[in-house]
Amino acid sequence: MRNRQIVLKAYPEGMPKESDFSLVEGEAPAPKEGEVLVRTVYLSLDPYMRGRMTQRRSYSPPWKLGAVCEGGTVGQVVASKDKAFAEGDFVTGMGGWQDFSIGTRADLRKLDPKLAPISTAVGVLGMPGHTAYAGVVKMAELKPGETLFVSAASGAVGGLVGQIAKLKGARAVGVAGSDEKCDFVVKELGFDACFNHRGDLAAGFAEHCPKGIDVDFENVGGDVFWNAFARMNLHGRVIICGFISAYNDQAPPPGPDRSGAILGGALVNRLTIRGLLVYDHRHSFDEFQREMASWIKSGKIKYREDVVEGLENAVTAFQGLLVGKNFGKMLVRVSADPTR
Amino acid sequence: MRNRQIVLKAYPEGMPKESDFSLVEGEAPAPKEGEVLVRTVYLSLDPYMRGRMTQRRSYSPPWKLGAVCEGGTVGQVVASKDKAFAEGDFVTGMGGWQDFSIGTRADLRKLDPKLAPISTAVGVLGMPGHTAYAGVVKMAELKPGETLFVSAASGAVGGLVGQIAKLKGARAVGVAGSDEKCDFVVKELGFDACFNHRGDLAAGFAEHCPKGIDVDFENVGGDVFWNAFARMNLHGRVIICGFISAYNDQAPPPGPDRSGAILGGALVNRLTIRGLLVYDHRHSFDEFQREMASWIKSGKIKYREDVVEGLENAVTAFQGLLVGKNFGKMLVRVSADPTR
Repeated sequence: MRNRQIVLKAYPEGMPKESDFSLVEGEAPAPKEGEVLVRTVYLSLDPYMRGRMTQRRSYSPPWKLGAVCEGGTVGQVVASKDKAFAEGDFVTGMGGWQDFSIGTRADLRKLDPKLAPISTAVGVLGMPGHTAYAGVVKMAELKPGETLFVSAASGAVGGLVGQIAKLKGARAVGVAGSDEKCDFVVKELGFDACFNHRGDLAAGFAEHCPKGIDVDFENVGGDVFWNAFARMNLHGRVIICGFISAYNDQAPPPGPDRSGAILGGALVNRLTIRGLLVYDHRHSFDEFQREMASWIKSGKIKYREDVVEGLENAVTAFQGLLVGKNFGKMLVRVSADPTR
Repeated sequence: MRNRQIVLKAYPEGMPKESDFSLVEGEAPAPKEGEVLVRTVYLSLDPYMRGRMTQRRSYSPPWKLGAVCEGGTVGQVVASKDKAFAEGDFVTGMGGWQDFSIGTRADLRKLDPKLAPISTAVGVLGMPGHTAYAGVVKMAELKPGETLFVSAASGAVGGLVGQIAKLKGARAVGVAGSDEKCDFVVKELGFDACFNHRGDLAAGFAEHCPKGIDVDFENVGGDVFWNAFARMNLHGRVIICGFISAYNDQAPPPGPDRSGAILGGALVNRLTIRGLLVYDHRHSFDEFQREMASWIKSGKIKYREDVVEGLENAVTAFQGLLVGKNFGKMLVRVSADPTR
């Protein structure tokens, strides 16, 4: 069986280019004792991946040049040398940007396709869902009646953040990158308000956050962040999940130095600013899965997927993700989904 | 009785000048029913006061031009129209920069000079002490074996921060503005290390914080802050108490914009950055007083006062405080202390 792999060729400068990657083909490996061979069905594309494509050390080491790009996947076992897995089983793991991967019981989790669509294992029931849950339920100390603001509100994490906030009795306000997305966020996801961040930001915040912001769940950074930060209420919480708007920046923007605004704002309003990384919350994964699954089942939580066909389109899809061309959780269908 | 008052004449630009204030003299007011007249013995000078001398709204409104400067005081009742206070009683309150002030039971607290020197009511047993206590005991979640770093380590707050950290089983490292102060911080206060912030900061941090910093208690800002921040450990906590080095700044420093370093650092290391204002911690004041008094009694906590004689020298003393000329808690002796 032929295995196509997308390999990182060069660390991108700015927006990743097709030429920073190469598509290589080889033979799918044979599983050894204790291993299974998995055919990738879905590859998850997530903003954090941009941070791995640099030589700068972040919370995880950079990807190695010449190695297959890493990524969360959902797949089907095609050959097994571990009796815990049978051919045909659906699994999720870190299979990477390729047609086939080798996994073990240490890094695969079996999925029951009857309980939820298998794609949700890298979405609402996986890392992005757990990120939203950990941020809102475990970190934000959100109280009923408070206002939560979230950027990238139609995205994989943002859409859940606002819905969970609503379930906790708070007001949820978001921004998204198009009027169509904003419509979806309000009408489908049930946010109290969502406005287009390509419009007049100050006016949008003034209209939709008239009582300020108690919790800012930050996914985007840049002007959206500064507008939200300026409206933080006394004892507000800023949960820093990511800064997608800055991921392609080569250097800090030119001055003035606004670090004092953050530190001074934290002091004057006694804010709590916390960095969120889902891997710190492993201990709450089962609880998250149970609660989220029941919310989905009862229709309290909705989600949307944006599925691109074909591994060969992964780089283009990832470029789109970084500028918000996706609409919902970004997935690449690497092979046919036998459950649909 | 003549009452001298120091009045704010103009909002200072940069370092406050003598000409921004005026010393006015008038008659001491007579207390009305329910009021007492207090002779100021000690006036507390504190860095936060610089923040009140601007038109910018901070956590409290600016001081009014033409009004007597505000400030914590210890004094003695000289006339009372409230049976809860007798002539000769010692009290603490917000008497301001003047010889005499009017107070009521709502804003005065009686002191027992047998329990502790009366000056401590605006120092180790007052607002600065409570600030240190709230930051370390209530906010920092300091664990035994962790490293706490504090700037202005010989100051009213910093000196206590490190000592409380030691009592909680942590390592305490500080910086101060002279070798003499550093000596005091280590030999008298018992910090594990203290280095001169006018020397090679990077070398000092490398030598004295070899395992990084778990809690940064920030009083100073500027280069000291950036050096500490760069050494924050995973899941570290930054308690923002103040930025004395920036209080006289008229505008943010020229670029580059380092706000991204703070937000990115918070994300990569999953830091918690929190603003500390002691007035949020009123509910723990009694607990703080009990615990701090017992620590002082048993010799576990030491403190040092820097007393300047005469209200007429308050502005000069305050200027000195902003550049670290004081050595310990800055006080002005406005009238003789009858207990010494």
